Formats: sequence, C-alpha cells, structure tokens
Amino acid sequence: MKLWDKGVKVDKKIEQFTVGMDRELDLQLAAFDVLGSLAHIEMLESIGLLEKKELKMIQEELRKIYSSIKNDAFVIEDGIEDVHSQIEYQLTETLGDIGKKIHSGRSRNDQVLLDLKLFTRNKLEEIVREGRLLFDELIAKSNKNKNVLIPGYTHLQVAMPSSFGLWFGSYAESLSDDMMVLQAAYKVVNQNPLGSGAGYGSSFPLDRQMTTDLLGFRDLSYNVVYAQMGRGKMEFTVLSALANMAMTIAKLAMDACLYNSQNFNFLSFPDELTTGSSIMPHKKNPDVFELIRAHANALQMLPAQIQAVTSNLPSGYHRDYQLTKEFFMPAFDKMIACIEMTRVMLSNVKINKEVIKDERYKYMFTVEEVNQMVLDGIPFRDAYKKIGQIVEEGNFEYDGKVKHVHEGSIGNLCNDKIVDKMNDIFIGFNFNKTKEAYMNLLNRI
Amino acid sequence: MKLWDKGVKVDKKIEQFTVGMDRELDLQLAAFDVLGSLAHIEMLESIGLLEKKELKMIQEELRKIYSSIKNDAFVIEDGIEDVHSQIEYQLTETLGDIGKKIHSGRSRNDQVLLDLKLFTRNKLEEIVREGRLLFDELIAKSNKNKNVLIPGYTHLQVAMPSSFGLWFGSYAESLSDDMMVLQAAYKVVNQNPLGSGAGYGSSFPLDRQMTTDLLGFRDLSYNVVYAQMGRGKMEFTVLSALANMAMTIAKLAMDACLYNSQNFNFLSFPDELTTGSSIMPHKKNPDVFELIRAHANALQMLPAQIQAVTSNLPSGYHRDYQLTKEFFMPAFDKMIACIEMTRVMLSNVKINKEVIKDERYKYMFTVEEVNQMVLDGIPFRDAYKKIGQIVEEGNFEYDGKVKHVHEGSIGNLCNDKIVDKMNDIFIGFNFNKTKEAYMNLLNRI
Amino acid sequence: MKLWDKGVKVDKKIEQFTVGMDRELDLQLAAFDVLGSLAHIEMLESIGLLEKKELKMIQEELRKIYSSIKNDAFVIEDGIEDVHSQIEYQLTETLGDIGKKIHSGRSRNDQVLLDLKLFTRNKLEEIVREGRLLFDELIAKSNKNKNVLIPGYTHLQVAMPSSFGLWFGSYAESLSDDMMVLQAAYKVVNQNPLGSGAGYGSSFPLDRQMTTDLLGFRDLSYNVVYAQMGRGKMEFTVLSALANMAMTIAKLAMDACLYNSQNFNFLSFPDELTTGSSIMPHKKNPDVFELIRAHANALQMLPAQIQAVTSNLPSGYHRDYQLTKEFFMPAFDKMIACIEMTRVMLSNVKINKEVIKDERYKYMFTVEEVNQMVLDGIPFRDAYKKIGQIVEEGNFEYDGKVKHVHEGSIGNLCNDKIVDKMNDIFIGFNFNKTKEAYMNLLNRI
Amino acid sequence: MKLWDKGVKVDKKIEQFTVGMDRELDLQLAAFDVLGSLAHIEMLESIGLLEKKELKMIQEELRKIYSSIKNDAFVIEDGIEDVHSQIEYQLTETLGDIGKKIHSGRSRNDQVLLDLKLFTRNKLEEIVREGRLLFDELIAKSNKNKNVLIPGYTHLQVAMPSSFGLWFGSYAESLSDDMMVLQAAYKVVNQNPLGSGAGYGSSFPLDRQMTTDLLGFRDLSYNVVYAQMGRGKMEFTVLSALANMAMTIAKLAMDACLYNSQNFNFLSFPDELTTGSSIMPHKKNPDVFELIRAHANALQMLPAQIQAVTSNLPSGYHRDYQLTKEFFMPAFDKMIACIEMTRVMLSNVKINKEVIKDERYKYMFTVEEVNQMVLDGIPFRDAYKKIGQIVEEGNFEYDGKVKHVHEGSIGNLCNDKIVDKMNDIFIGFNFNKTKEAYMNLLNRI
Repeated sequence: MKLWDKGVKVDKKIEQFTVGMDRELDLQLAAFDVLGSLAHIEMLESIGLLEKKELKMIQEELRKIYSSIKNDAFVIEDGIEDVHSQIEYQLTETLGDIGKKIHSGRSRNDQVLLDLKLFTRNKLEEIVREGRLLFDELIAKSNKNKNVLIPGYTHLQVAMPSSFGLWFGSYAESLSDDMMVLQAAYKVVNQNPLGSGAGYGSSFPLDRQMTTDLLGFRDLSYNVVYAQMGRGKMEFTVLSALANMAMTIAKLAMDACLYNSQNFNFLSFPDELTTGSSIMPHKKNPDVFELIRAHANALQMLPAQIQAVTSNLPSGYHRDYQLTKEFFMPAFDKMIACIEMTRVMLSNVKINKEVIKDERYKYMFTVEEVNQMVLDGIPFRDAYKKIGQIVEEGNFEYDGKVKHVHEGSIGNLCNDKIVDKMNDIFIGFNFNKTKEAYMNLLNRI
Repeated sequence: MKLWDKGVKVDKKIEQFTVGMDRELDLQLAAFDVLGSLAHIEMLESIGLLEKKELKMIQEELRKIYSSIKNDAFVIEDGIEDVHSQIEYQLTETLGDIGKKIHSGRSRNDQVLLDLKLFTRNKLEEIVREGRLLFDELIAKSNKNKNVLIPGYTHLQVAMPSSFGLWFGSYAESLSDDMMVLQAAYKVVNQNPLGSGAGYGSSFPLDRQMTTDLLGFRDLSYNVVYAQMGRGKMEFTVLSALANMAMTIAKLAMDACLYNSQNFNFLSFPDELTTGSSIMPHKKNPDVFELIRAHANALQMLPAQIQAVTSNLPSGYHRDYQLTKEFFMPAFDKMIACIEMTRVMLSNVKINKEVIKDERYKYMFTVEEVNQMVLDGIPFRDAYKKIGQIVEEGNFEYDGKVKHVHEGSIGNLCNDKIVDKMNDIFIGFNFNKTKEAYMNLLNRI
Repeated sequence: MKLWDKGVKVDKKIEQFTVGMDRELDLQLAAFDVLGSLAHIEMLESIGLLEKKELKMIQEELRKIYSSIKNDAFVIEDGIEDVHSQIEYQLTETLGDIGKKIHSGRSRNDQVLLDLKLFTRNKLEEIVREGRLLFDELIAKSNKNKNVLIPGYTHLQVAMPSSFGLWFGSYAESLSDDMMVLQAAYKVVNQNPLGSGAGYGSSFPLDRQMTTDLLGFRDLSYNVVYAQMGRGKMEFTVLSALANMAMTIAKLAMDACLYNSQNFNFLSFPDELTTGSSIMPHKKNPDVFELIRAHANALQMLPAQIQAVTSNLPSGYHRDYQLTKEFFMPAFDKMIACIEMTRVMLSNVKINKEVIKDERYKYMFTVEEVNQMVLDGIPFRDAYKKIGQIVEEGNFEYDGKVKHVHEGSIGNLCNDKIVDKMNDIFIGFNFNKTKEAYMNLLNRI
Repeated sequence: MKLWDKGVKVDKKIEQFTVGMDRELDLQLAAFDVLGSLAHIEMLESIGLLEKKELKMIQEELRKIYSSIKNDAFVIEDGIEDVHSQIEYQLTETLGDIGKKIHSGRSRNDQVLLDLKLFTRNKLEEIVREGRLLFDELIAKSNKNKNVLIPGYTHLQVAMPSSFGLWFGSYAESLSDDMMVLQAAYKVVNQNPLGSGAGYGSSFPLDRQMTTDLLGFRDLSYNVVYAQMGRGKMEFTVLSALANMAMTIAKLAMDACLYNSQNFNFLSFPDELTTGSSIMPHKKNPDVFELIRAHANALQMLPAQIQAVTSNLPSGYHRDYQLTKEFFMPAFDKMIACIEMTRVMLSNVKINKEVIKDERYKYMFTVEEVNQMVLDGIPFRDAYKKIGQIVEEGNFEYDGKVKHVHEGSIGNLCNDKIVDKMNDIFIGFNFNKTKEAYMNLLNRI
C-alpha cells in the first residue's frame, strides 16, 4: 500500500530505488509520528473536523501504537512504504473511516517535516546531555592534573611550558562554545511546521498556535512556504552547528593519538582500550581515538553533503530531500558515540607525570627567561636577542619553574568560570517544556 | 624587516610564498590592531610594565596611526612583512625603545587572533545591518503583493495556489532564523583572546579582565590553549553560521532566475538590471541574480575549505592558519554584496499580476475542491479519489478562489509576527557596547 | 576471535564502536579475499614457505569457500570480527596448523588493501558496462529524435533552436569523456599492493611479480610505503573519477525534471514511472529522476568526505581508514543504480514533438536571421543591432527553419564519431585479462 | 564598451558586481584569445566569410597584439569589460568594419570556453614539467639515502623498520600515479569547443575540424550542447585530477613537519628555509612546508567548490560559470608553487642518519625476529605469540639488521621501474603537437 497508489503497478526495481532506506530510517520517527498525530487530532476536534467521540477513539489507538513502539513491538509490514503509512494503515484497520480522518488538513510533507523536527529536538537533547558529561570529565581531569607540566607546541616545535590542566580545560571551554551554537540551532528547529501542508497551507481553518502549544514548541514557523523550506535547511543548520562540536572532538582525538605515540609518550591507555597488531606483537594502537577522529572529521563534512543534494533546488518540495535523511538521521548517534567514547577513554587515561624532565624540552623555558629580564627592566627585543644568542651558543640553562598567574594560565585555570559559562547555556535549552508537553499528549483522556 | 629575522637572508621566492596575501589582507586589520594595542598598553601600565608617561606617548602615536588608517593614508611599506610589523616599526621610529615595549606580554599569535576577532565582530555587524534592510524590503514586498496569486510547485510540478505575499515573506522569515544562528556565532567570537600569548599564556601578571572590558568584549576566552584554538575554529564557526544566510539568498536567487524565464514569466527586471547577449538581441539575462546565486552557493562551501586546511592539525599554532585568512576575510564583503544586490534587485522587480490566469495552472485548485468536500462531510481519502478521477477524465472545473485563513497562510501571512521575531534577535546583538568601548579607547587622554 | 586478541577482554561497547560496519561491508570482499589468498599461497609455495602438498590442501579449501560465497552460503559467524578472520578461522578449523601458514609474508594491511582493490576493479567494470548501455540508449534516442526541435536556453532564457538529437547526444559524449577519466583511475587501481605488508614490506623473499601476474594486475605498486598509501588515496582517486560521471547524470536528471514540468512540457513519463501525491490527485511527479539527481549530487561530494577523514594523517596506516570504507564501498552500487534507473527512464520517455510551435519560442530564431544577413554581406554587429531593433518594436517574423550543417550541430550530430570515441576507450579497459586470471586461480589443480 | 550594451546605462555598483574579477583574471587569457582568433579567421576565410585580403590584415593586427601581450604591454583599458572586448576594440579601432567580422560564427560563450581550454592545456603542461622535476629530486634522494633506516609507523606507533629510501621513493611513485590521472584530464580538455557558439551551434557552415587542427587539439568536442557543458565540467574534471597530486604533496608536507619536530628529529632544514618566532628565540619553524600543506589541502577541496556553484544548473550557459574562474584559474599557479617549493625544500633537507639508534625504536625489529622463526619452521601464529610474550616480559633483543629483498622493499627499491612508469606517462602528453600548432599560427604569412 502506498498513499499515492493510483492502481497502476510500479516496477519492483523502481520501487526499491525510490523507497531507499526509508523503511529502516523511519522506524526512528515512529514515536514522533504518533505524538504529532495526537496534537493534530486534538486540534482537528477543536475546529470541528473531528467529533469528540472520534477524537477519543483515535487517541486511544494512537497511544496503544505508541506503547508498542516503546516496547519494540512496532514493525513496518512488508509492502508498506514507510512509517506514516503503517500507522495510518493500523488506524484504518481498527477504526475504519474514522481512522482516515486523521489526514484532514495535513499533508505528507508537513507530517514528515514535523516528525523530523521532533526527532531532531530529541536527539539534540541527547547530545547536549552527553556533551555535558564529557565536559564534566574534562573539567575534573583538568583540575586533578593542573600541576602536571607538558611541553606546549607551535608549528609542532617545542615552544613553551603547558600543562595537562590547560590541555584538558581547553577542550572543556571549547565544548561550551560549541553548545552555544548548538542552542541557536535548537531554537531554529524548535518551531512548529505543522499546518504548512505541502508547503502552501490549507483551506481548513487550522489552529496552528494550538498544535504549537500541545507539542511544546517555542514558536511557529509561520510562513507556510518557509516552513516547507525547512526540509534541507533544517538539516543544514543543525549539521553545521554539530560540526563545531565534532571539530572539538576531532582535535582532541588527534592530540591523544599523537601524545600516545612513543615519540611523545605523554599519555597511554589500558590494554582493554587499545588494540594489537596481527604482525607486530608490541603495539598498543589507539584505535578508539582514531575512529573517534575519523567519525568526527566525517561529521564536519555533512553540511557540504546536504548542500550537494539541495543546492539550486527552487522553492517547494522535491523528492531529493528524502535522501538528506540518510546523511542527517544517523549523524546524531555517531556524534553521541564519539562523545561517549571520548569520555570513556579519558576516564581511563594514564598521565605521564615525568614528561617535562626530558632534556629536549629545556628550550621552551627560554621565554620565561626573556620575560624575567624584561621584568628586570631590559627592553623585550633586546632580551629576546640575548637569549636567542645564548641558545645558539648552546649555553642555555633554566630552573624549570613556571610562574603564570593571569586568568586562564597554568597557575590560574579559571575552570570555575568555564563551568559557569556551561551552566548558563545548559539552562537555556529548557528541555522540561518538551517533556511536559509529551506527558500531556500521552496521558490526557 | 621581519620580527623573526635572525640576520640570515631568506630566499626571495620563499619569502614571497610565505608572505602570501598577508600584505593585502592585513590592511583591513590595521585599525583593529591599533585598538587592540591601545587596550593592551593601558593594561600594561596598570600592572607596572609601562610608566604612565610612556603610556601617554604611545597612545598619542597610536591614535595618530588610527587617524591615518581612517584617512586611507596608512600603507605597509616595501620590505615590511605585515600590518603588525608596520605599526610596530612606526612606533619604534618615533618613540625608540619605548615603542618596543608594546610587545611585552603579547605574542604575534594572540595579537593576530585579537585583530581577527575585532575585524569579524565588525563585519558581522555590517552583515546584520544589511540583512535587516533586505528583511524589511521582503516584508514590504510581501505585504504589498499579498493578494497576487502564483502557482506553488512541488517536484517542479504545479501543485497548489501560492502568492507573492507568501513567496517574499518566506525569505523574510528565513532570514530571521539565519540571524539567530549568526548571533550565536557572534557571541562565540565576542570573547577576548588577548593575553593567551603564543597559546600558553605569559609569565607576566596580565589583567585580562581589564582588556576584556576596554575592548567591549562580552566575556573572555579563559583557557589560553583554547583561546589559541580560535584560529581555525572561529573561522569555521562564523562561516558555518554565515552559510545559513547564504543558503537563503541562493534559493531566492534560483527562484528569481527561474521565475524570470519565459517559461514562467512571474517577474521581470528593468533593462538596467539585466544584460543582453553578444549574439541574441532579444535576451534579458538575469546576470545579477545568477552571480548572487553563484557567490551565495560558493560561500556555503567555505566551512569545508576551512576544514580542509585545519583538519587533523594537533593543538597549537601552525602556519597553515595563515591561509585560512584568504578564505575567511573576503567572505564578509561577498556576503554583504550578495545581500545588497538582492535588495536592489527586489526593489526593482516587476510583478506579473496575471500569472494565475494561465489555463495550465487550473489543476492546482483540486485540493481546494477536495477540502470543500471534506468540510461537507466526505472522508478525505474518498474525496481525494473522486477528484483524482475527475481530473483523469478531463472534467475538472474550479472557481479560482482561495480561502486560507490559518496562521502563515495566503490569507493570514502573520508578517507582524515575523517582524517581532527579527526585532527580538536584532536587539540581542547589543552593538552599542562595542561602539562605546572604541570611543573610550580613542578619545581618553 | 580477533587476530590481535592478546587474552584481554575488550569492553563490549568499545568493540561495537571499533568494529563499526565492517561485518556488513566485508561480506562484499569475501570472494576477493579468497582470490587474493589463492595467489598468495601459490607464491608462498614457489619460494619454499609452503610445501606443494600443503598448497593443494589450502587451495581445495579456499575454492570450497569461494563456492559457498558464490552460493550465498558464506556467513561471518558471531564473535568473529571480519571476513578475513572468518576465512582464516575456517581454514584452521579444517586444516589445523597448515591453515595458519597462509598468513606468512602477509599483513592484515596489505590483505585488506588487496581485497579493496580487487573489489574496486570489479565494481568499476560493472559501472563501465552499465555506462555503456546508457550511452547506447542515449545515442539511439539522439538519432531517433534528431529532427525534433526544442528551444535551447542560456541564463534560463529562451536563446536559440536546439533539438532532442542534440540534447540526448550531449550526454552521450559527456559519458565518453567521463569514461576516459574513469579509465585512468582504473589503471591506478589495477596495480598490485600484495607484499607491502603493514606498509614496510617483509623479510621473506616474496615474489611480488608472480602474484601480480596471477591476479591479472596491470603492474605493481612497487614501493611498499606507497602501496600502503593506497588506503585513502585509492578511494579519493576513484571517487574523484566517478564524480565526473555522477555530474553528467545529475545534470541530465535536472534537465529531465525541469522539462517534465508543466511550464516546459518537453517530455513526460508513463504513470508507472512517476508518483502521485497524497493530497494533489493530478500530479505526475518525476520522483525517480529526483532521486537520481539527489544520489548523483551526493556522490560528487564523496571525495571531500574522504579528504575530511584522511587529511593530514602522516604516512603509515591509521585506523581512520576503516571508516573510508563506509563512504567508498556503497558508492559503486549507488552509481550503478543511478545509471540503470536513468536508462530505464529514458527508454520510456515520451517526447513532445510539438514544443517548438509555442509562440513564446519565436525569438530564438533571431540569430538565424542575423546570420542570414551576414551571409548576405552585412557586418555582424550591424545585423545584430538591426534585428535587436526589430525585436524591440515587436515586428520580428521567422520561418522556423534551421540550417545547421557543421560538425556537432543540429543537422550533423556526428554521433558516429562519438561512438568511435567510446569504443576506443572501452577497449582500453582490457577486462578480459582479469577474467582469465581468476579462471586460472579457481580451476588450476 | 560592453558587447551587450544596448544603450541603457547600467548602474555602477551593479556593473562592479557583475564584472567581478574578470579584468584581472582575463589578462592571463589574452594570448590564448589571440591564438583562438587566428585559427577562427583562417577558417572563416576558408568558408568564404572573410576575403583573403581581410584575413591577412586581421592576422597582422592579431600578431601585433600577441607581441604586445608577450612584452607585457597589453592592458585592458578603463571602461572595457574584459579581455575579449579589449582585443575586439583594438581591431575595430585599427581596421574598422573588417575588425568586426572576426565575430562571425562565434559567440562569446565558445570564445571564452576556447580561451579557458587553451589556458588550461598550457598550465597543465607547466604542472607536469614541474612535477617531473620534483619526481626526479625524490628519486635522487631515495637512491642516495637508501641505506638510512628510520622507524616506520602504523597508528603513529613505532611499527617496523623503514628507510629514507622508501620514504622519498614512495612520494615519487605517488606522483607517477597522479600524473596518469592528470593525463586523462588533459585529454578531456584537449578537445576543440570552437564552433559550438552559445551552446547550440551556428547556421554558418563552419569547418570545425580545421580549427581543431590549427590549434593542435587532439579531437573535437563534437556535440555543441556538450561542448558548452564544458563550462563547469572541465573545471571539475581538471581540479579533481589535480587534487590527487595535491594530496600527495600535502601528505609529504605533513610528514616533513612531523619529522622536523624535536620529538622525531628525522630531518631538518637550513635556517634560510625556516622561520623564527617573535617570542621564542630557539624555534626553527617549518613554515614553508606548513604553507605547502595548507595550500595543497585547500586545493583538494576545489572540486567541491565547483560543484557548489554549478550543481543543479540545467544545461545551457548561466552567468554562474563566470565565478568558477575565480577558483579555477589561480589553482594552477598555487599547485606549481607547492611543487616547486617542495622541491626546493627537499633539495636542502638535512637527513639525520642516526635516528635508528634510539632505544625506543628497538621493538620494531620484532617482526624480523618472528619471520626468522618462521623461516626456521615455526608456524607464524606461534612465533608471533612467542615474541609477544618476550616483549611483554621486557626481554626482547635484536641485531638491528634488515634483510628485505622483494620488489619495492628496503633492499630493493625498484626506483628504475618507477622511473619507467613516469617516462611512459610523460611521453603520452605529446606536448610538441601544441607547440607546433602555435608556431604555425603565429608565423605563417
């Protein structure tokens, strides 16, 4: 059964090509499809397109379907094209003509768009919560290792003293900035498209503010043509925002792989978290961080993938948007896995506390000496030339002490300020509003 | 003169390769370099690294340089590598050793990063202000043409009635969402990196909160390692945010080119805004919108360009980041030109008010008929099949009236609500804070 | 069982993350893994690392496994990491210690790389053969419709007379160029990496020329460090080459969707190959071409995806390369589906032979008139201005005849020359060499 | 003067926007524009559209202009839009109406496309010649350092013995594969588009085979619609091919930066080729290789930039293609600079011949020991476990000798075979044909 079936048999191969991965992907939309329908029918009743009795009957069935989804008992049957058809099919099987009424004032287009938005809202919440856990781990590790020095590099050249406190903390602050961008994307997503129909609205007197409230949306996507532009655009906005966090994770992973090399030996991981080699028995390969790096780098290219598919499509729906789901929907779980794996790895990391004793890092203390000379009244450029000369001659000596006191430096990490930043952002998501709306939709009799 | 010159002659060709486009691009940073230095020296004086008298002397010189920049009298002299060296050179020429002291507690790395952030803050303000003008034009055009119907398409097939009111309004609401994402990027940028040195802080007791306040920043990038990660990451965050607006503009331009085709004939532009052909005398080519489309599409790919350059670079500065300036800095003026050109074109557009009379658009009124049957009590699916059959048989008739009343539909555009959205976002940028800070830095004696 | 298992239990979640999609993807490599092993062991025997009797025993088992793969009876058992381990496991189960010997002089790295190359060689052959069928269809359609005029557009403006003969033929010639680039990629792939081990060769006296010949390779990837660079680089080279063909298909699909619009009405497709709408009964949506367009556009971005994952990885294997398989391996079947679907659609296309009669296309005959004046001795610019003036005044008349005779024009398509190009390229692939090599490996006793 | 000027004044700002960078970029096309015109007019004369006397007059003028271009005396005058208009303007100034005749049977579209193809052919030749020089340097360095061992890494973990011979040689062989792909792109480019007009041919009886021969093209782009598709497609094909070489260079540069780090210390560069730091006097930063890496990485993303601009444009010219020149034309000189700088750096590299003596590399000799045990008759897996155990217990000893003899290994680099590959490819470009054609066009009286 396909909704657009006009009685003409469609070639099997064509059908397979057009259905694509929808049946697999759509299962993740099932619960949201039910929630959207619950809001839609309550509104339909309020404008007289459903009788109160009909509303109750459909509500009851939809809540049963919701339970079956939550219990993993829901399936898309053979020959049924997608999740939306399956749910509608079940309603019609049970309720007959009453079940069909659910489609009044709604198009497949705004229905799918709504499902995708509810799905995305939910996945972004998961990412924010996982990201927060990683943030906490990073802050904890930063505080714990604030006194462990490591070399800081520029141009991959040993440059100046750094510390594990700085290193861990840097990625925590990076996550807080990523979260701010993510919140803007969340707010863009969190606007109701229902009622936009196929992109040109409806001649029914829909109450869109009502469904907005019922579904816990922050606001409406008012203009119906714009609402429909959400296909493609939402994916781009969200994946672009996610890409920032992926960039943070990827850089952390690159550092970890490098620092785990025998040539750095700053940190290591227990055997359970590394892999060996089929031919080199002594290896402890950081495969987990390599795969985190690979996934996080790939995630950053997804906006370009969305652009590739949607670029220069004039306004109005095109079937091309179906394909964006293949890039969009799996991105969230990949991001979540990357964040979670990073946290697992970091919670098991072994820090080498003796790194700094290596002779080859001594020259990074030159700047400390230059600055001491400046504090003693010598102009910077002269001090700089002087120390440069001593280094050239191989006579540089140092005491290995670092006296950095300003905000954000080795001696004053300001991790509490960074935690404040994160807390402020986290509150701004206001996840409770969604939860309450769903509770109402599912429990109201 | 190059700051890192150690007396060894560097091969000319190598030098040309390493300097790249810096001398051209850096001119745009000159004013911001002076502002940053004004804040830096005021702070240096407060912690005893400059005497009050020295501070005044340097301030005076810097303000002179600032004036010369504003009067287009500032140049980077031959043999001087970049804008930062030029300014330092002028100070040293005038003030001797005192001029050299400006470099205390600062590295070329945090200096450049600061300049880029001030530059970006400024350019984003320009974009927001231009974007607002385009938004206003779109709303005005939407209100004015709210009753002019056009066909709405899905799959490039004539689908349902739409209107110029909807079409113009859709891009206005799109811009408001784009502006929200842009604001998050603006907030990320608007954090002070000064004091992070080469990425590992300084042994001087810098007061970073003071420079934060002096430069009108919203907050600090606390962690110095993270601050330095801003190179590459800031570009990515900002360009990713800008890409949303570019996507909006590109789609509008594609629509405009298509609707200007003889096969649509929805709108046209005066001769001054179209071009002819060297071989086909009757053509009125929409070159301006084609180039807007091309630029706006290209802009969307810039985050991928940044990723291409920065991916898998471990933490710490690498010279690779110099190249990101070539992609990053010109992006703003391109975006501004696209927005401005779009506004110019739309303010001159001629609307075809008779589009809908074309016979080939009649089938899009089928949904109106289906819905009327539903309101008369016929189940949707049955009404749908009935009308489908009438269409198949070639007997479809319609009255050409559209009765859409819900929020965001043809009859109820909700443009006032969309303007409210935009106003709320615009206020959130708080551009005045920056302006006041700069006034203080430049006028205080 | 994992080859690198050192007796330490690896956390379940980590394992799931690191295995990724390997178990699914690797099934496609199974047959090639066997073929590679057959060549490897024959060579091992020749250098004395296997006895003749052992060789025969392993050959027999491997051929059995090959048969089971071809009969879809082969599975990767639970708890076994990938296809390579599964095959080795089966050999050891049957042959004990002898089975283990197959791993001498080979690393997992060159084994996987070899499998990927054999897989790619095979898939490229499929693509070339499918592409050839599409080419033939295009040429046939071009010849058949060489006299059916359509408007030619520049800037989406009606410009000059074109024809379906030109339109179909253009994509045929485009495919021939794409095929030339594909052949270069094929030649790069078609070089033997076996013997490169983990990227640094082997201390066994391997005979790499022998395995090269046995597997029907064109040449060796000599340098073992370079051979290993094939991971990532091969994917990039092949996907970059494929992208050209995807670009051709995508443009054809865009044209088809546009020309199928009611606003063009150049061509249409039977009901079985279009889809309807859940809400608009009259629609005949070109979903198949929309999805072809979407896939073909997405395929063009895959090189960027590969770059995203592999960029700035220093030489030597990294686990990141595992992820490239997720982008690389499915690309071929997607490309093949796009080509095949395009052919199916085109073989069912209905051509509108009356397009050109529409009044709005008359101005495209202006150039014909200009040229006629030139042939009558009037300078081009003057003729151009004259006709332009007539058009401005609304007095343009034309006879609707097109007299183009030069190579590649409406009246002289040169499709035979284009077929010659394609034939020359096709022969250059020399697919028979591979087939013969495989026959020998599988049947020799 | 603009060719399409119809007497209507075009707004200044619009003009600036539409002209874009054409005036700067087009200067590089000037010489090729003259060559193309020389071929075109000779053909025009042969079909009777020019008199023999006129031909001679125009030839004479064109050759003068060609000389002025070669002497850097050619300029695009103020108010003239592009190079094509400038040349036509000069001809008309000198020859009056006869000068105008050059435009017969040609459109701006095929003229620009031809110029771009001739330009590209030329630049590709430069790249191939520069690439060959780098190849020769790499082979020389490989041969010279074939006995200098370094560690080989997998997963950034010390894995197995490698050598500078292998390392240099790997990039040489990589270049030979890149060159093969480049040749396919060269062949695609090397087909004549002249005569395709605005994309729909001409009603003049043009002799396209004649201009093909005169310009030394390998073949024609027959189908005129396809020829015009070359805009966008040629750029994509060529930049995709170039991207392979850029990938090779980028990886080499990454290796060089890493190996130059104090943590590796495999190689170094003289002071003239490194830069210092404004704050850290001891640094020797590999800025040249960092910038090579950055440029080479950016170059790889250019095909995506082209796709971003051209995707989903239906067939026929669009002004969007003008913008592709901004990405396309500068790419060649960037590529050439990267290749040349790499060669300069490598010719000055200092090799550390003592790397391998560092104790931390000893475990990479484990595989040598495993293999020795296998050659002594112990099954591989058992030998592997045995050595693994010895390593775990800290008792691993080794003799530091490497006995690799197979093709492409440390002891048998096969550089001669790799040189053969390169020679075969180089000859296939057949650059002489172009040179001869140009000589004829310029000297014939």
